[in-house]
Amino acid sequence: MRLANATLPDGSKHDIEVSGGRIAVLLPPSLLPLSRGDLDLGGALVLPPLVDGHIHLDKTLLGLPWVPNQATGNRVADRIEAERTVRAARTVPESETGANLVRQVIASGTLHMRSHVDIDNQLGLKNLHEILKVRERFRDLVTIQIVAFPQSGILRSPGTAELLDAAIAEGADLLGGLDPVGIDGDLDGHLDPVFAIADRRGVGIDIHLHDGGEGGLAQIHAIAERTRAAGLQGKVAVSHAFALGSVPTELAERTADLLAETGVAIMSHGPGGATIPPLKLLRAHGVRVFGGSDNIRDAWSPFGNGDMLERAMMIGYRANFRHDEELALAFDMVTKTAADVLDIAGYGIAVGRPADFVVVEAGSLAEAVATRPRRKLVIKAGRIVARDGVLVS
Amino acid sequence: MRLANATLPDGSKHDIEVSGGRIAVLLPPSLLPLSRGDLDLGGALVLPPLVDGHIHLDKTLLGLPWVPNQATGNRVADRIEAERTVRAARTVPESETGANLVRQVIASGTLHMRSHVDIDNQLGLKNLHEILKVRERFRDLVTIQIVAFPQSGILRSPGTAELLDAAIAEGADLLGGLDPVGIDGDLDGHLDPVFAIADRRGVGIDIHLHDGGEGGLAQIHAIAERTRAAGLQGKVAVSHAFALGSVPTELAERTADLLAETGVAIMSHGPGGATIPPLKLLRAHGVRVFGGSDNIRDAWSPFGNGDMLERAMMIGYRANFRHDEELALAFDMVTKTAADVLDIAGYGIAVGRPADFVVVEAGSLAEAVATRPRRKLVIKAGRIVARDGVLVS
Repeated sequence: MRLANATLPDGSKHDIEVSGGRIAVLLPPSLLPLSRGDLDLGGALVLPPLVDGHIHLDKTLLGLPWVPNQATGNRVADRIEAERTVRAARTVPESETGANLVRQVIASGTLHMRSHVDIDNQLGLKNLHEILKVRERFRDLVTIQIVAFPQSGILRSPGTAELLDAAIAEGADLLGGLDPVGIDGDLDGHLDPVFAIADRRGVGIDIHLHDGGEGGLAQIHAIAERTRAAGLQGKVAVSHAFALGSVPTELAERTADLLAETGVAIMSHGPGGATIPPLKLLRAHGVRVFGGSDNIRDAWSPFGNGDMLERAMMIGYRANFRHDEELALAFDMVTKTAADVLDIAGYGIAVGRPADFVVVEAGSLAEAVATRPRRKLVIKAGRIVARDGVLVS
Repeated sequence: MRLANATLPDGSKHDIEVSGGRIAVLLPPSLLPLSRGDLDLGGALVLPPLVDGHIHLDKTLLGLPWVPNQATGNRVADRIEAERTVRAARTVPESETGANLVRQVIASGTLHMRSHVDIDNQLGLKNLHEILKVRERFRDLVTIQIVAFPQSGILRSPGTAELLDAAIAEGADLLGGLDPVGIDGDLDGHLDPVFAIADRRGVGIDIHLHDGGEGGLAQIHAIAERTRAAGLQGKVAVSHAFALGSVPTELAERTADLLAETGVAIMSHGPGGATIPPLKLLRAHGVRVFGGSDNIRDAWSPFGNGDMLERAMMIGYRANFRHDEELALAFDMVTKTAADVLDIAGYGIAVGRPADFVVVEAGSLAEAVATRPRRKLVIKAGRIVARDGVLVS
């Protein structure tokens, strides 16, 4: 099949020949008549699939009647507590609400994602099992990478280290972690099991770090140094890393150099109520920065919808991005660099790669980020999987 | 006509009887069959019309091919400079792009707005004349309040004070101002003409204040003290007021008391790259806080679309709002309190008031703010003016 009259993100015009689910040839727009099965895109913008580097498929309450936020305070610990109440009241399994969210994100053009899944001594591996079902159910449509995430801490929730290890054995792809000092109050006590299990199981690591200021920064340093010591360069990420946005530039620069050297990536969702890491500074120092949705209509946040083009806008808005090159950076965070961090094979629009595309009406990539137009088509391996924001059954 | 099966923002269910463009009666949902011309809303949420307390109708480039941002720096002065270049290159009049934006905002449910209009010694009153045309063109659909806004400063742009005065004579409703210290470098030199013209012409004032920290705070104090001295209580607003978000709480509280006492309102658009005023603190001290879009796809910002339900979400996101009561506060900023600051007569859903409504599918007000659902209907004086986000011609 041919996708005729496509505008690629760099502004170039092409006909895209698809064969066997892959991009066979990129041709100059031809005047040949279309054959049956070809699509004339009429100059629409064709983007690579969106990538969500940080989602919580098990937490979302999407599709359920509205659940008001119940946290009694503004600390991470308050939200953890509130979530335990919401969890206990849940009557619909995480596999169902998670599936609601996966359908919605595919329809918005996301074909790869990294989902953290809560594991603690109250839940055990229940949420993992539920989200493994979701992964299996949508395996032909979307890549779901799973992080075994100790949402209640490791030391505060005895037995969690063993559960994390078991989670990897049962199909989780990476080890998670959470504010070693802010939640567990013990940097090494928290990081020891995380790095030990990752080493033993041969998997990567992605640690939530909300702790701010120089205390948070010290934890980022510790993670980077352990990454180097463990030979895990390129396989570790720190999510949120608010601290990088709340310290003097000189300190952020020094940390950026260490992160680049140890191949530790930084995930930001463009936080509304916290400091955002200095994305351009990090990039300039060679750090991979990528984007994610974080919470979507769950016990943590009423906001979010899983639309990664909107997320790029939110990241850009928070980072005070205004120039086209800056909007392109925000876009890169939810496409190429996120795919790179997630180690997605054959990602991007090039000959021989999977024919995965998101088609929108926009005059430029920058305009697409700023205006987040409706997704006309989402194409997976040459097949239309969503049209005008609705999944094709 | 009857709007049957409406859910009001407080969750109550009603049939709304409309007569002569006004709300005649609010009845319990009846089982009477619908007559011709009645509408069954099926339990949809009926909101009062959205109010945009701060828009720039003359600046937008909406409807034109994408114009990359050209500012060479991140200061307000850099953006003013960049805008002069964009202005000079403009071939489509502000009345046309402004009309594009007005159509879009009406379709999203906004029926009242306050637009700042640039006035300086390069432009003269051209932009005012263009936006007066827009106001006239859409007068049956939407209230457009115009602020004569000295975008290039008053002292830095000699002749502007006279132009501001002439602008009021020609139909502008309020006096504007801009960073007396940051732009004009002279607090009294800037505020003297603003308050003198407002006094002579008997109009209100709305001043842009980006200046942060204690220097910005001192300017807010000066504006409040002048408001009291001029007897303008309730007729003055400070837009942005980033300073309130960047000073110690004790100072913000003291300023809040002064603002409440002098009836000076605070407008926030939920800035992405600047500090946001402490909205709940201000409210708790009796200050009216209201919302606005600010820049929409113009020389200042690539972002924005004029959707005030989305703006309430952005304000909530930036203010770290999560609870339903907090989302209700964000909603209040773009409805009731904004209408109050703009002095809109007969605003709100009550018997005898104009039959102006926005109908959405949402299980609660909080859900409407968080998810920003499509506007099913926008109703003005009992007449459908937009359906599913598209203006009825």
